[in-house]
Amino acid sequence: MDELIAVLTEIKALFNRSLSELSIDCVVFGFHDNQLKVLLLRVKGSDAWSLPGGWIYKTEDVEHAAYRILQERTGLDSIFLQQFHAFGANQRYNGKEVMAKMGLPPEHNFFPERAVSIGYYALVEYSLVEPKTDLFTDECRWWDVAEIPDLLFDHNDIASIALKTLRRQFDYQPIGFNLLPEKFTLIELQKLHETVLGHPLDRGNFQKKMLSYGFLERLEERKTGGAHKAPYLYRFDAKKYEIYLRDNE
Amino acid sequence: MDELIAVLTEIKALFNRSLSELSIDCVVFGFHDNQLKVLLLRVKGSDAWSLPGGWIYKTEDVEHAAYRILQERTGLDSIFLQQFHAFGANQRYNGKEVMAKMGLPPEHNFFPERAVSIGYYALVEYSLVEPKTDLFTDECRWWDVAEIPDLLFDHNDIASIALKTLRRQFDYQPIGFNLLPEKFTLIELQKLHETVLGHPLDRGNFQKKMLSYGFLERLEERKTGGAHKAPYLYRFDAKKYEIYLRDNE
Repeated sequence: MDELIAVLTEIKALFNRSLSELSIDCVVFGFHDNQLKVLLLRVKGSDAWSLPGGWIYKTEDVEHAAYRILQERTGLDSIFLQQFHAFGANQRYNGKEVMAKMGLPPEHNFFPERAVSIGYYALVEYSLVEPKTDLFTDECRWWDVAEIPDLLFDHNDIASIALKTLRRQFDYQPIGFNLLPEKFTLIELQKLHETVLGHPLDRGNFQKKMLSYGFLERLEERKTGGAHKAPYLYRFDAKKYEIYLRDNE
Repeated sequence: MDELIAVLTEIKALFNRSLSELSIDCVVFGFHDNQLKVLLLRVKGSDAWSLPGGWIYKTEDVEHAAYRILQERTGLDSIFLQQFHAFGANQRYNGKEVMAKMGLPPEHNFFPERAVSIGYYALVEYSLVEPKTDLFTDECRWWDVAEIPDLLFDHNDIASIALKTLRRQFDYQPIGFNLLPEKFTLIELQKLHETVLGHPLDRGNFQKKMLSYGFLERLEERKTGGAHKAPYLYRFDAKKYEIYLRDNE
């Protein structure tokens, strides 16, 4: 009972300091074992899964809220984040459904009647993330993109539109570096692109295109441990990347 | 005085039936005299210009609100409409500023404290539009994209991000047909693309690419009145276009 009162008090305080008609939902992409992964949360006391999301403080910029929410879930300070779509169907969201799944008494519902959700996707380095639950959830972990379960509300749509937009962005902006560790081989970079796009790429053309951007730095080090001749490791030069993006907006 | 009370009553009723933290702003593009145009509104009793926008009814889908708002401003029933970005800076909007510009007493301010705006762009056939003012405005007319004046709030940013996104969309989706009359020549279509993109295109490659989509229908009719050999007129086949979009999402 004490725990119930504590949770209700915290939920009430959260909604008191937040906008009531708007929320944020995040599709956090990671890359591991040649699989594209998404971070999902399980609602407290239930087997219902959802995207990580949150609410916007009354005087907070929406973009700031998105960074804050992602930092809270991943423990990361620096995140590649991209707004991609606002989801505004009248019936898309139902706060009472979350209350019920959490076993909270409906007469204490502080969830808003309606929420339009602004969707962001994030590209993170898988190994640096420490998934954390929040007030509403018992579990936070990675799922393969191909195995996402039935999610709450319209979250399956949000995830699939995020992936579609990410693929499109890969076509005109080389943003895949955000999903890789600091040092990587061109083969690893190609594998990532093939996984995100869902089809194989010609090796020669891919490497030529990537090197032509001018922001990949070849290191003296080579990757060790493989059966073949050790390939060079590359690092991504953030300053040159910024210049590239500015010139190719 | 009667007029003032009537306006205030109407404003109050509008905000009573609408969400209070969210608005919609639209960048309506038209093409005329080889210029890309944008529809702007002048605030009642002032020389301040803004994008056409509006509010979302409490139980209305956001996308439906965008169509409704655009129908009200243009008189068009069928509009190509694309959501492109939500603008959420805390200080971006100031309802009191609009009240002041309209000469309305600040103690009767019904405008919300803060509004996040969802941006849509529309592509319309210039000649079919009948620009209409709304409750807050005295004038509604086309401006050349290159000559947009200083707009209210962050509306210049909204317009420029709309144009950037439109250019990008032209690269992967042939949506320019929405800006042309029912029948057009390939030269007119090329001129439109060059105007939107801001650079010339190779004629042979452009025509080959456009015809390869398979949804352009060449008519028996030819364009008359030019000095040169009369070029063929084309029509855009909406059904084939839908199939193309479905297959090339």
